[in-house]
Amino acid sequence: MTDYTLETLTDGTVTTPQGFTASGVACGIKKGSALDLGLLYCVTRCPVAGVFTTNVLKGASLLVTQEYIQDGFAQAVLVNSGNANACTGERGIQDAREMAAHTAQLLNINPQDVLPSSTGVIGEFLPMNWVKEGIDLCTQRLDGNGGIDMAQAIRTTDTVSKFSARKVITDEGKFTLGGIAKGAGMIHPNMATMLAYITTDAKVDGLTLKQALTEAVNQSFNRFTIDGDTSCDDTVLLMANGASGTPDITSSPAMQEGFQQALNDLCKDLTYQMANDGEGVTKVATIHVKNAPTKNTATVTAKAIAVSPLVKTALYGEDPNWGRIINAAGYSGAAFDPMKSSLWIGEIMVMRNGMRAKYEEEAAHNVMKNDRIQITLDLAQGSESDFYITTDFTNVYIDINADYRNRT
Amino acid sequence: MTDYTLETLTDGTVTTPQGFTASGVACGIKKGSALDLGLLYCVTRCPVAGVFTTNVLKGASLLVTQEYIQDGFAQAVLVNSGNANACTGERGIQDAREMAAHTAQLLNINPQDVLPSSTGVIGEFLPMNWVKEGIDLCTQRLDGNGGIDMAQAIRTTDTVSKFSARKVITDEGKFTLGGIAKGAGMIHPNMATMLAYITTDAKVDGLTLKQALTEAVNQSFNRFTIDGDTSCDDTVLLMANGASGTPDITSSPAMQEGFQQALNDLCKDLTYQMANDGEGVTKVATIHVKNAPTKNTATVTAKAIAVSPLVKTALYGEDPNWGRIINAAGYSGAAFDPMKSSLWIGEIMVMRNGMRAKYEEEAAHNVMKNDRIQITLDLAQGSESDFYITTDFTNVYIDINADYRNRT
Repeated sequence: MTDYTLETLTDGTVTTPQGFTASGVACGIKKGSALDLGLLYCVTRCPVAGVFTTNVLKGASLLVTQEYIQDGFAQAVLVNSGNANACTGERGIQDAREMAAHTAQLLNINPQDVLPSSTGVIGEFLPMNWVKEGIDLCTQRLDGNGGIDMAQAIRTTDTVSKFSARKVITDEGKFTLGGIAKGAGMIHPNMATMLAYITTDAKVDGLTLKQALTEAVNQSFNRFTIDGDTSCDDTVLLMANGASGTPDITSSPAMQEGFQQALNDLCKDLTYQMANDGEGVTKVATIHVKNAPTKNTATVTAKAIAVSPLVKTALYGEDPNWGRIINAAGYSGAAFDPMKSSLWIGEIMVMRNGMRAKYEEEAAHNVMKNDRIQITLDLAQGSESDFYITTDFTNVYIDINADYRNRT
Repeated sequence: MTDYTLETLTDGTVTTPQGFTASGVACGIKKGSALDLGLLYCVTRCPVAGVFTTNVLKGASLLVTQEYIQDGFAQAVLVNSGNANACTGERGIQDAREMAAHTAQLLNINPQDVLPSSTGVIGEFLPMNWVKEGIDLCTQRLDGNGGIDMAQAIRTTDTVSKFSARKVITDEGKFTLGGIAKGAGMIHPNMATMLAYITTDAKVDGLTLKQALTEAVNQSFNRFTIDGDTSCDDTVLLMANGASGTPDITSSPAMQEGFQQALNDLCKDLTYQMANDGEGVTKVATIHVKNAPTKNTATVTAKAIAVSPLVKTALYGEDPNWGRIINAAGYSGAAFDPMKSSLWIGEIMVMRNGMRAKYEEEAAHNVMKNDRIQITLDLAQGSESDFYITTDFTNVYIDINADYRNRT
């Protein structure tokens, strides 16, 4: 029997695990003195895993990171905000390589061990002179408490910084995981870029790291939608430096399960932080689909409900409009029988076997007044389940995304 | 060489072709004296073709129409608005059969030749006593100019009636096509039901009719999106009674091509009427994707752009935000190389080979100020093309769909 304890570390970030330092500076990409360049550095070259956008349009910095990560190791991450370095052609690629090379030179490490990321306006070239001056500052300011500055530096339209950390306690010893994230705002960057950087001082080999990250991302960032749009820069990176001194996590089921659970928790926490800070968001809803004939049916029906503008406006209007919910599941492309399906809003059954259940409108309406709403669709046609996290569509969302030229 | 002339018949409807009568009455489903029941009748039993929603959730009236249409013939269409007769189980099916049976009895025709449709609120039973009284009135009021009343009776949140007609003139004689439609409003009905009924006095066999309708629908209603939601009641019906006296359209290429072109035109006209009347719509945009490697690539990239909330809010904000457009194409799931692709807003090239083209922001912004906007994505990777018609997302859309409880 496996035995581990999880602890949430308040205010923890990427610099909470041992052996990581970070910094954030203002290099002039953004107006004023807003932080716009962040650096994460590890005392040792260590295993790294990444999950990237599936968009065929990929930012230049992301392409370079995908190339550099192929050997499975890295030692630093350099991120700028305010400019996506996307749709910038060969020059964009060269700029991303230069970001890595300049950082590597100052840190005296291999250029391929510096992973560049960019988020912000697309179609414009990076101001490389300013970026390089910023890198100089970033390397000078690396600090064991620098995660907060870095979390600030990767923000674009985010109104708050996002960070989270967990400690895992097992009989074999203790290790920590920490993360920062940005997203999913999309005013000035023109699109919803989602970035997350996670560190751990556990000892994890590259293959295990990649599997653990994929599982955690599939239960968090990949189950979250604000408007269905996927950016060309979406990146999640996880570095494991082993500085805790604990044995390889695969040597004990408690360590491995504790690590996975902590990573899942941390990613889900960052996802909800992003949802709460979504543009114009007043409600966050979790759509559960259960007893589906296949996993795919559960996934696509949950997603169809989560991205439906009619469902999202009903959330905003606090309207328990179950017709829109079952209708969205119906057009998802999944094969299921609505006449066997039942639907709950919170604890209230609003549809039974494809027909209106007996419930009080007022009670259902009251559930919809909450900031967090659970919607459960029971297909009663199997045993598979899945979920999506979604937000409401509000006038503020429209204003932000229609009028950004007048606001910036 | 084929030779035909098309004429647009102003104010033409389903009763413009010879041999069709129609009516619209208020039977009490809607509040006040709003027309809510419409009847279309043909002097003869005639070939009919239908295209229906792909939603697995299907309204009861639609299911009965799908059953009755299987023999390829019909003589009447009965439509109520204000109640979708959906999520109403076996009783809903019985109600739809009763609608057809009562109409058939009064008209002295076969119940299976009356096709029922319903649109409106879901999850409530039809008030059958009122509906049957309404059917009595409808049959009494059938009129050769009744198409206008029927167009009015099928409206839900539509602010105007939609109708269109074409005359086809060939050496072999003249025939006409007329149609009415409703959609795609979605306040009270809880979802976007799209209904269209088309008549012609041309002589057309059932198979040709079905092929012609499928082609026309694929270039019009199926290429239009307000919010990506597809209703459980979407129905397009086409009846051909041959009352013009012209020979079967397949006997002459001019007649067949003229018929197809007129049908395409008519369906596209009704589609644009729906788009212009969409909830809160201030802009209608047509997204063309050309030189795609496969037809499917053209279709899915055009659709991804058309349904993207970020593109639709940019339309509202009159913002030539090409980054959002290429980004949406990128996440469509289609395989293409953005670095070979170019993009136009109106006549202005904004992106060339995946990078910003040389253009004046002000000029692109001016194009976006128009009510009708053309967006063209040239993938330069093949010869296939497709298009989608879309609308902007506005604050009025949010208000209508969030607050309908307070408005009704």
